[in-house]
Amino acid sequence: MVNDALRKPVIVILGGGFAGVFAAKSLKRRLGWDAEIELINDANYFVFQPLLPGVAGGGITSSDAVTPLRAMLKDIHIRMAEVFDIDLAAKEIIVVQGTKRRLIPLAYDHLVIALGQKVDLSRVPGLAEHAFTMKNLGDAHRLRNHVIDCLEHADVTQDPKLKRELLTFVVAGAGFSGVETVGEMKDLIDRSLKFYPNIEREEIRVLLIEFSDRILQQLPPDLAEYASQQLRKRGIEILLETEICSATGSSIETTDDRIFGTKTIVATIGNTPHPLVMSLDDLPKDKGKIAVDRFLRVSGVDSVWAIGDLALIPLVEEPEEYEQFAPPTAQFAVREGGCVARNIARTILGGDLIPFSYESKGAMASLGGRRAVAQVYGIRMSGMLAWFLWRAFYLSFLPGGITRVRVLVNWIMDAVLPRNTVQVQQAESQSTRYVHFRKGDEVFEPGMLADGFYVVLSGSFELKIEDPSAEEPVIRTLGPGDHFGERVIFGDGLRTGSVRALDASLALVVNREDFERFAGAFKVLGDYFSDYIPKTFPISIHDAGNEPTSESTPTGKGSPIPRWRKPRPGNAAPRQ
Amino acid sequence: MVNDALRKPVIVILGGGFAGVFAAKSLKRRLGWDAEIELINDANYFVFQPLLPGVAGGGITSSDAVTPLRAMLKDIHIRMAEVFDIDLAAKEIIVVQGTKRRLIPLAYDHLVIALGQKVDLSRVPGLAEHAFTMKNLGDAHRLRNHVIDCLEHADVTQDPKLKRELLTFVVAGAGFSGVETVGEMKDLIDRSLKFYPNIEREEIRVLLIEFSDRILQQLPPDLAEYASQQLRKRGIEILLETEICSATGSSIETTDDRIFGTKTIVATIGNTPHPLVMSLDDLPKDKGKIAVDRFLRVSGVDSVWAIGDLALIPLVEEPEEYEQFAPPTAQFAVREGGCVARNIARTILGGDLIPFSYESKGAMASLGGRRAVAQVYGIRMSGMLAWFLWRAFYLSFLPGGITRVRVLVNWIMDAVLPRNTVQVQQAESQSTRYVHFRKGDEVFEPGMLADGFYVVLSGSFELKIEDPSAEEPVIRTLGPGDHFGERVIFGDGLRTGSVRALDASLALVVNREDFERFAGAFKVLGDYFSDYIPKTFPISIHDAGNEPTSESTPTGKGSPIPRWRKPRPGNAAPRQ
Repeated sequence: MVNDALRKPVIVILGGGFAGVFAAKSLKRRLGWDAEIELINDANYFVFQPLLPGVAGGGITSSDAVTPLRAMLKDIHIRMAEVFDIDLAAKEIIVVQGTKRRLIPLAYDHLVIALGQKVDLSRVPGLAEHAFTMKNLGDAHRLRNHVIDCLEHADVTQDPKLKRELLTFVVAGAGFSGVETVGEMKDLIDRSLKFYPNIEREEIRVLLIEFSDRILQQLPPDLAEYASQQLRKRGIEILLETEICSATGSSIETTDDRIFGTKTIVATIGNTPHPLVMSLDDLPKDKGKIAVDRFLRVSGVDSVWAIGDLALIPLVEEPEEYEQFAPPTAQFAVREGGCVARNIARTILGGDLIPFSYESKGAMASLGGRRAVAQVYGIRMSGMLAWFLWRAFYLSFLPGGITRVRVLVNWIMDAVLPRNTVQVQQAESQSTRYVHFRKGDEVFEPGMLADGFYVVLSGSFELKIEDPSAEEPVIRTLGPGDHFGERVIFGDGLRTGSVRALDASLALVVNREDFERFAGAFKVLGDYFSDYIPKTFPISIHDAGNEPTSESTPTGKGSPIPRWRKPRPGNAAPRQ
Repeated sequence: MVNDALRKPVIVILGGGFAGVFAAKSLKRRLGWDAEIELINDANYFVFQPLLPGVAGGGITSSDAVTPLRAMLKDIHIRMAEVFDIDLAAKEIIVVQGTKRRLIPLAYDHLVIALGQKVDLSRVPGLAEHAFTMKNLGDAHRLRNHVIDCLEHADVTQDPKLKRELLTFVVAGAGFSGVETVGEMKDLIDRSLKFYPNIEREEIRVLLIEFSDRILQQLPPDLAEYASQQLRKRGIEILLETEICSATGSSIETTDDRIFGTKTIVATIGNTPHPLVMSLDDLPKDKGKIAVDRFLRVSGVDSVWAIGDLALIPLVEEPEEYEQFAPPTAQFAVREGGCVARNIARTILGGDLIPFSYESKGAMASLGGRRAVAQVYGIRMSGMLAWFLWRAFYLSFLPGGITRVRVLVNWIMDAVLPRNTVQVQQAESQSTRYVHFRKGDEVFEPGMLADGFYVVLSGSFELKIEDPSAEEPVIRTLGPGDHFGERVIFGDGLRTGSVRALDASLALVVNREDFERFAGAFKVLGDYFSDYIPKTFPISIHDAGNEPTSESTPTGKGSPIPRWRKPRPGNAAPRQ
């Protein structure tokens, strides 16, 4: 026992995934009030990752798929904050919390790093900018809303190319996450179609793209084969030994030189350990993860432990093969949490440390459409039985009885009620975003609404404006550093020219509203454009414009606003 | 009957609230397949407004409080789009839909305008920029997440002033929406407190601010008095004959010259008819609404009808008093929908038009804490019985049996399970935003993280930087057109000076990330700052800075990044 007169040891756990949560629970059980235990996570809830595809598919309400950390971990300090830095020498971590305006240092006696993995899609041009990921609740929520958005828009558009793009859905990566996501997404679409009378079932195209020669590498080949058949039977196309080699806002290109028009790319690939941790020189690394010993101590760093997906955990004394390290699964993370707690408790209270060891009990994957595949304790299962097993297993595995009830109620309601196609929150497009274009892509054409200000970063674009006073249209080539879009934003809001990409190109787009606010407030920008526009575009925007021309109508308040600019009261500079 | 050889009449309904939805239902029933009926709404669901406070309080899952329009209105065309303009002469409306890049014209034979009201808070300086509204599902969702965010942050902050602001919650307006919102919000806080060990119950302050002399003007005085008592008993402070006269990001000032520090302002005031409609000259207006005759026809405009909250509907032949027009309630909107459908059907099929008339059956308000007040068919009720009645009434009133089941299940789960404190989606702060400051407000002080680039629009600020090489600090006064924040963003990311407002001031703030992207891509900005910073701030940022100083550490990828700037892989310019 620690003497009460002494300061209690402070144990800080970074990360509220399986590893961190189970470490916290186990530490509390072992040390009770004899230690201060604090868990730091960037969300206030524990995400049960295997339920995320269900959220994306709409079968589970987003808030029910997760459990508040405070409800799961009673009597443990919870801090919703982002880890900004770790000072191993001073034994403190630095976090930002709340309004994120200050750096808060927190001292520790023991540090458990369980921050898991992030997604890094930067290897494939355009993927980071144009793909959805499936890591957290927000991702799943966004994907569901986006799919419904595509159906809503496809139902009313008259443009066949756009309709095809809206109804083509691509998932990259056929591991558990990719397979379950594609299955749930197909479920959502199939069950919603009856509400969209202008969409035919044949118009829907769902692709699963996998770089290796089969799906579900973690399962035996025959189960994976069964899963493939099930997915194909439900109309999902599986492209094996294929990778996405570039992506734009309206298409992907694959390594077999095919281009698919699509507005929906879900990337379940590109997992990489948390970048902050990897950037700390003092932490030893191996195979792209943090190197720990068999007791889960970070090699050579005092009082620092690492568990979960970012740690390279040896299962034998001198591991040589990939299989001799713990795999990044929930099963292992839970046991790693228990093991690290035991070893920290023994370090504090005294006792020998125990090396980590565990053997997987099996694996299972839901395929959507009430089908699953499973291998548990060596027994293989597939079909609806496996699907029931999958659900029962996850229900039993869910931390916290309350979440269990919520998810069960969700499943029961989903079984008896039609899928809810409410689009909870419309996507708020980011104010500045990088947009990739393929050669020949049209950026805009006459008559389109001004959506933003474009700065060319690489490649080139052709700008073409019809000049009614001349026979030939005005044509300009725009390269890196050039920009377009400002003239229409400051003008009547409707594009009068066309722009298309001459090469594979990249642009930074600033949303119209934010651009207007910034240029309106910041004199440097305002001056530049009042000078630039008349100088470079001598054609009057009204002469060059196609119908309808801008005309003023008084608003209710009496101030003249151009009729063709939609009145947006929230957009004007505020009262002072 | 319309002859099949003729083109079917096209009836377009704008708005999917009570008025629009019930008009559509009734039109379908009366005209069947003899007319094309299209309903246009900016969300794909019908919002049951009275349930929004429940969503904000967390008792109802957000997607369950609403019903997909397509599920409610079978065989009616639904278009998720925004109305951009109405051309009454050409008998067409113009919408933007999907990616909002084109204007889509749609012709009509009959147009039903039921776009309802928007919120206009521009009358009170700072309110539009700093208050939450309660109009749609997104609003309720955001408010719930924000309240949880305040609790999370208050639980860990060491700053007593900030903690007080985080734990003070203000609702402006004590009509139905305001009273129900304040009650539900208090419920959420009370039921969540047990999870926040560092927050004492006495630290919570909830204010309801009303400009008139009592709450719930729509109910008889004694019921309103009972409601006041109930709210006060639950710890809600009610300020009558008081208005908010200004708001900032951290406080409000009231008309009795008091200032309350708060991070949460909910405005249920400022309802105003849809601005687009009000800006159309050709529509006759009266008392700030669209003037219609007793048959719901817009006076003097061919084939255009208006119903719901934006229409001024006379209940008698020559109305003189306020009470002789239809009030803006759901009860009336439903009947107006039925009446307009009957009159349009009679216009098409033949028959006399019937004037609108209806008498209110009563009103009720939920107070949270399982209490409500009601007056129905002249009978007054209060307490738990009224609360049960409130729930039963709304359940019966819900459009669509499925939503009814979902909401009932929500209520049952809420009764037996603890309130779910999951913060579903963290607030994404807008890229550019207007921020109001009160005289003396501190904008930032040394050591704070750079959050954005500030352009002064009105008022003035004092910038103070300690210069270690001189005795006196450098002090500058910044007025309209001046800017600050750029030096720290381009420097080491930590504020080295302090800025405070010298007057009531307004600034446009551009988020750090968007500012960095824009300045990095757009040469005009980049050049301006590389010239401006050394010229105006001859002090080296490293000399002037307090610890820690910026130092480079190689990242995993080998490129040097300053250690004190958090690695944000998504922030770098993407691969090309």
